[in-house]
Amino acid sequence: MKSIDSPSVIWTPWMRRALQLAALAEGYTSPNPLVGAVVLNEAGRLVGEGFHLMAGMPHAEVVALAQAGSKAKGGTLVVTLEPCCHQGRTPPCTKAILNAGLARVVIAMKDPDPRVSGDGIFELRNAGLEVITGFLEQEATFLNRAYVFRVLQGRPWGVLKWAMSLDGRTGLSNGLSQWISSPPSRAWVHGLRANCDAVIVGSGTVRADDPLLTSRGLKDPEPLRVVLTRSLDLPIDAQLWDTSKAKTLIAYGPEADQEKFNHLPKSLDRLALTSTNPIDLFKALAKKGVNSALWECGPVLASSAIQQGCVQELAIVIAPKLLGGFPQMTPLSDLGFTSMEQVLVLKDTQMFRLGEDWLLKIPFPITKA
Amino acid sequence: MKSIDSPSVIWTPWMRRALQLAALAEGYTSPNPLVGAVVLNEAGRLVGEGFHLMAGMPHAEVVALAQAGSKAKGGTLVVTLEPCCHQGRTPPCTKAILNAGLARVVIAMKDPDPRVSGDGIFELRNAGLEVITGFLEQEATFLNRAYVFRVLQGRPWGVLKWAMSLDGRTGLSNGLSQWISSPPSRAWVHGLRANCDAVIVGSGTVRADDPLLTSRGLKDPEPLRVVLTRSLDLPIDAQLWDTSKAKTLIAYGPEADQEKFNHLPKSLDRLALTSTNPIDLFKALAKKGVNSALWECGPVLASSAIQQGCVQELAIVIAPKLLGGFPQMTPLSDLGFTSMEQVLVLKDTQMFRLGEDWLLKIPFPITKA
Repeated sequence: MKSIDSPSVIWTPWMRRALQLAALAEGYTSPNPLVGAVVLNEAGRLVGEGFHLMAGMPHAEVVALAQAGSKAKGGTLVVTLEPCCHQGRTPPCTKAILNAGLARVVIAMKDPDPRVSGDGIFELRNAGLEVITGFLEQEATFLNRAYVFRVLQGRPWGVLKWAMSLDGRTGLSNGLSQWISSPPSRAWVHGLRANCDAVIVGSGTVRADDPLLTSRGLKDPEPLRVVLTRSLDLPIDAQLWDTSKAKTLIAYGPEADQEKFNHLPKSLDRLALTSTNPIDLFKALAKKGVNSALWECGPVLASSAIQQGCVQELAIVIAPKLLGGFPQMTPLSDLGFTSMEQVLVLKDTQMFRLGEDWLLKIPFPITKA
Repeated sequence: MKSIDSPSVIWTPWMRRALQLAALAEGYTSPNPLVGAVVLNEAGRLVGEGFHLMAGMPHAEVVALAQAGSKAKGGTLVVTLEPCCHQGRTPPCTKAILNAGLARVVIAMKDPDPRVSGDGIFELRNAGLEVITGFLEQEATFLNRAYVFRVLQGRPWGVLKWAMSLDGRTGLSNGLSQWISSPPSRAWVHGLRANCDAVIVGSGTVRADDPLLTSRGLKDPEPLRVVLTRSLDLPIDAQLWDTSKAKTLIAYGPEADQEKFNHLPKSLDRLALTSTNPIDLFKALAKKGVNSALWECGPVLASSAIQQGCVQELAIVIAPKLLGGFPQMTPLSDLGFTSMEQVLVLKDTQMFRLGEDWLLKIPFPITKA
């Protein structure tokens, strides 16, 4: 049994509060991580709290310390991520912590950013502060899985979502697919988009479905809408070309005839890629500060994204319907498997009700059998 | 609030016991229904119970009354189905009830069999017994849904089962499908077979999968294995041709060349059909006393069975795997839909864990949107 004054008994509830604060900004902080912080005075009473709202805005520690003011002296900062020690768009947080006269800093996880990566902790310890690390580290890492993945791998955390019928169909033989899933499921997808930095489709989906791809206002600004196209053969009219509510980025390959941009609105952003492989798009998006990207594409692009390691998470809405159809319109195209030993086996699937649908969610990692 | 001596308070627990007894014979009683009975003496204490074990064996009422003997006098019979009043393979139960000197009979549901259908109740009331009906009628009807459906519709209760991957695949592009689902799921399917009277495949499934289609001994005798074939073009060797553990029935259409039976074992049963439509097979199976039949066939036959009203229940095992493949190997073939308004919408789906798989079950009825 843990003693009532053991560090984990004292700090765990505050770290949980800091994680809740951090999560309030989900979908808004990229390229930065989600961070929450609370400040306790010397007697252990709450005197300040804050979270990082979005890139360019003050860091969580600074917000919480500003709220605490002189009450922070001799107190404790509980923060979900190692404080930064470098000058970015805002000054280093370690400086603010030292200036506040704190006695102790409690940290959930190290910042994987190579500009920090333990140096923040070192600097604080070096200045004589007590630094305790690793509280609720797993929860903190999960909350920032997209940020951590982008920092360490150089590409966004990929989420692949599809909706299908009970017989594994994503549309009818004639191409109709609106709507397989129910309104509660579609509302859930809007929320999923709001937690991502970018939403990606191929040109085929633009032609077939003419999607809007927004969070319907759940997130402001809306996630970046990305159209991946080899040829720039895009329709003249499309909902995605209206950029008054959300930005649209046209990512195109080297073989594309750029003359074709003349037929498209000037308001579309452009991204020239060395190839239209998902991995090349992802590397380019990571450089733009995209931590998480949602694939809402057709089967060929989805399979290619899986094969190139650009899918870390799956969300499958299974609508209780039978569509039938000639064998086509399935959620994935070929993955190149020739025996059952090769197929992808997914672990820890979770099932939820979404109105009348079932949502099958598979957390990372997607591993080979 | 119900009075402590209201009929429902007194008889409902006993009817629940009778239903539990009835269910003990699930899969064994066809063409007869599942029936359970308890006998209480005049003071309301249990003095006998029984259930119908299989066709040709004594009915539940007779078993329970035999156990009660003279203690039944002035007592109550609680029975899940209206007692029969006709001479079948066994004498009418109404006679046994009257001979036992009972004061009261409590019945869950009327027997839809036109030879009974209220006449049993009438006969007992006419003889001066108190007859109370409709206790747990819904539960009793659900338990005997296959029997009721076969009696009223003249065809078995159809169950369609398939196993698929998360991407709606029932096999790889090269035809391999063993095993998509996990051992717990396959064990569950053995139990499903044990509760059915017949298991049906087409000749394509015999060629592609060479299935065994038994309950692996859960039911003895095993369910009847049925191969539906237009042409009688069947492999020389197949696990289904070994009838030492389970019977196999070859159901063939009028265009079949019966000479082809010369290449098959003599132990196979034969059934000549006017057509190989699922509905014609089902009518013929109903005449053979089959109450419930399980479709374990390929997509074309499955779709045809749905279209002809030969599927009342669906059981879908969703294995947490991604198979991919060129667009084929999907669980259903064409259902003839051309708009989303036409597709089958299923209600009251239920989701269960089966090891690492998900089982999506859809109780009847399958209704049009």
